[in-house]
Amino acid sequence: MSDKTSYHMPVDEFRQRGYALIDWIADYFQHVESMPVLSRVEPGEIRAMLPPSAPQHGESFETILSDIDRIILPGITHWQSPNWFAFFPANSSEPSILGELLSAGLGVQGMLWATSPACTELETQVLDWLVDMLGLPADFKSNSAGGGVIQDTASSATLAAVLAGRERATQFQSNANGCDGKLVAYCSTQAHSSIDKAIKIAGIGINNLRKIEIDDTFAMQPMALVSAIEQDIADGLVPCFVNANVGSTSSNAIDPAEHIGQICRRFNIWLHVDAAMSGSAAICPEFRLFLNKGLEYADSYCFNPHKWLFTNFDCDVFYVRDRQALIDTFTLMPEYLRNKATESGAVIDYRDWHIQLGRRFRALKLWFVIRHYGIEGLQFHIRQHIRLAQIFADWIRASQDFEIVVEPPLNLVCFRHLGGDAKNQKIMDKLNADGHIYLTHTRLNNQLVLRMSIGQTKTEERHVRRAWELIQEAAQDI
Amino acid sequence: MSDKTSYHMPVDEFRQRGYALIDWIADYFQHVESMPVLSRVEPGEIRAMLPPSAPQHGESFETILSDIDRIILPGITHWQSPNWFAFFPANSSEPSILGELLSAGLGVQGMLWATSPACTELETQVLDWLVDMLGLPADFKSNSAGGGVIQDTASSATLAAVLAGRERATQFQSNANGCDGKLVAYCSTQAHSSIDKAIKIAGIGINNLRKIEIDDTFAMQPMALVSAIEQDIADGLVPCFVNANVGSTSSNAIDPAEHIGQICRRFNIWLHVDAAMSGSAAICPEFRLFLNKGLEYADSYCFNPHKWLFTNFDCDVFYVRDRQALIDTFTLMPEYLRNKATESGAVIDYRDWHIQLGRRFRALKLWFVIRHYGIEGLQFHIRQHIRLAQIFADWIRASQDFEIVVEPPLNLVCFRHLGGDAKNQKIMDKLNADGHIYLTHTRLNNQLVLRMSIGQTKTEERHVRRAWELIQEAAQDI
Repeated sequence: MSDKTSYHMPVDEFRQRGYALIDWIADYFQHVESMPVLSRVEPGEIRAMLPPSAPQHGESFETILSDIDRIILPGITHWQSPNWFAFFPANSSEPSILGELLSAGLGVQGMLWATSPACTELETQVLDWLVDMLGLPADFKSNSAGGGVIQDTASSATLAAVLAGRERATQFQSNANGCDGKLVAYCSTQAHSSIDKAIKIAGIGINNLRKIEIDDTFAMQPMALVSAIEQDIADGLVPCFVNANVGSTSSNAIDPAEHIGQICRRFNIWLHVDAAMSGSAAICPEFRLFLNKGLEYADSYCFNPHKWLFTNFDCDVFYVRDRQALIDTFTLMPEYLRNKATESGAVIDYRDWHIQLGRRFRALKLWFVIRHYGIEGLQFHIRQHIRLAQIFADWIRASQDFEIVVEPPLNLVCFRHLGGDAKNQKIMDKLNADGHIYLTHTRLNNQLVLRMSIGQTKTEERHVRRAWELIQEAAQDI
Repeated sequence: MSDKTSYHMPVDEFRQRGYALIDWIADYFQHVESMPVLSRVEPGEIRAMLPPSAPQHGESFETILSDIDRIILPGITHWQSPNWFAFFPANSSEPSILGELLSAGLGVQGMLWATSPACTELETQVLDWLVDMLGLPADFKSNSAGGGVIQDTASSATLAAVLAGRERATQFQSNANGCDGKLVAYCSTQAHSSIDKAIKIAGIGINNLRKIEIDDTFAMQPMALVSAIEQDIADGLVPCFVNANVGSTSSNAIDPAEHIGQICRRFNIWLHVDAAMSGSAAICPEFRLFLNKGLEYADSYCFNPHKWLFTNFDCDVFYVRDRQALIDTFTLMPEYLRNKATESGAVIDYRDWHIQLGRRFRALKLWFVIRHYGIEGLQFHIRQHIRLAQIFADWIRASQDFEIVVEPPLNLVCFRHLGGDAKNQKIMDKLNADGHIYLTHTRLNNQLVLRMSIGQTKTEERHVRRAWELIQEAAQDI
């Protein structure tokens, strides 16, 4: 082997292996529906099939591909199964996979406009499209003082928003001299754990995050927010950030963003609206009335096409009203990144819009998805998911044994068996162990609640109908 | 169109479009060498070719693919060209692209062990392999108190290290109550801008980041570090984090990690070693003597397979000596993520190892690369790049008109024309505008310096030889 002049894969082999892998994925999509959704392996079982050390000599790609079936597949929990009703989905689609493939093939890193202008400009354009597609405020468009950027996840978007709010509240003194323990932030008791994480990361301290009380729809009570802010100001503290949920993780609760936004304006606090899951539904005009209400007050907003717009994880879309506030929070210009395009001021360098320096060409997959489906196709599938959730909710309502815990605004149904927490836990465990469907739980009003989250790309009525049959059977068997 | 029951791409069409895209990528690799490396478009030129709004009705995938050539390709700066000598590379390879494709096809999100055990266990195993492959301390392996995780970029890894150091120094009081303005951190004047960014994000404040003086190899002076730490302690401040470079961005400078590590132990400060670019070279035992020296003192360490181990961006490998310190920094357990596997304590949930909650299945591409090349193949190509850089340095040394600015330890050659800053700037601008090669600059000793960074997967001697001819011609023409 030692006289080889290259270990690269010859181009013809790449073609053949590439075709084979495309076929593997096509076959996977045709069969995923019949696989146990939640992986059944025990801890350590996958590792035990892997050799203890890396191979000294290269292996054939045929061997590698055969190990996908033998080693990897048993350890997959099938997020792309139409029987996926757990957490929120991380859905994908064929055009999105092709977009990821092209992104990998081009292999560009778009930290600066100059390091691939198409990576930056396609992203700006597609994110401007989405403002119109979702009926969002025109202030989020790149021809205003605002703009959008793709982040990996809503966790990173939230962190970026917290930091911009922190810097605005302290006139960039936190960036300069560090936090001083006086900053406070606000969210509802239902906010996603990423808010807590961001507040810790940003040096604000979790004890300075006020969890505001909720009403009986699990939405934030604005007057409780006002009281908390006024108390903090009276105590000499500095409010810097408010998070409002549009579709909370536990129950799809929708905070009153309009009222919260007016409060934030009055006290000059950064308002971030987290619509990670539910934001995609705004592509259907009929849902905008409650999804987009009050967004004219939002300093930043995010939603995840990788949850419910058929675009592979990771892809979070993040908008700000004042892009300069965000850029000033992050920007640094070491000599080795200086370049003419940046210094001309005529371009966007997205590296100043997020935590990381480097970035993948994620706009391709989003562009492929939007062009393949068209607005019409995206609306069709979103409406179908919501319709299926509402049908499912009707079945629950008609049942003697189950109840709806909170009215489902969109595609997440929170329900429970009337037999108590232990019964519900057993129902869920049995269903997930049987493997025909996968669903998860939360706690609301101190009760264990089952979550039926309907948003996997390929979920159709027959999958939801069968899930309901299985749920009823499980309840009877236990 | 309104009577359609699905807008998804039929499986047979996916196969055909997938094959076509594989062919497109194969053709791209065969032709990329002849394309202008730095994109020639003007600001706004790509956007001007895109429609002002999203299509109402879906478009054919044939149209979409044809737009890749028409709209996207002119706006690509070709990171995968063998004539890429700019910044550091973000290299890829055929097996890595296939790994990305499989990851996109499976579409799993590995936030918890349970949400795809293979995603977690393959990552743990491959990162254990890499400890042996690179001769790193056994304390980084998962069977010790430490362990490894894939981060997106070194920026995120550095931030995670800063946060763990911050929490260790304050007994988790920063997470609880926020920073108090007394924390201080240290790096050399040559450290990457991501250190500055992380210190700002973490609420420590850039004015509390001490930039320690360097010696004539641009490496940190340990005694200057000791002085700074002692002064800060005397001033009532709390040192929490030191960054050591193994291969700085400007010039590949290697900080004396052993000496710095002993200092960190003495003062109980978290030591992070940033080997983002150069770490991959440790796969060749002959380079370990200086690359891995002192790593036994490192609390955390990172290097980027996406830079120089033929693995697509993004893929940063991050190790810690005490995984509990990292997990305790990040962990949160909302009800909706509770599950039996996590509560058993028998599994790793990587969501507690980084900023984000969600995560892609990145280990696949790294596994494919390691298995395809074998240790032998990876060593071969790393050695070739270093050999080419040393040949290039010899040509510079033999030249009348150019000089080496600092001795190149590995594959980055910092050099300049003797004609002064303006001349060097013009040479670089001409070369990049001509498009046959792409290289970038830095400043060292207050002089503009050209950087010849040799690490693109397919770069061979003929590319380096031609680059040198072009550099000499450009110098003569100006």
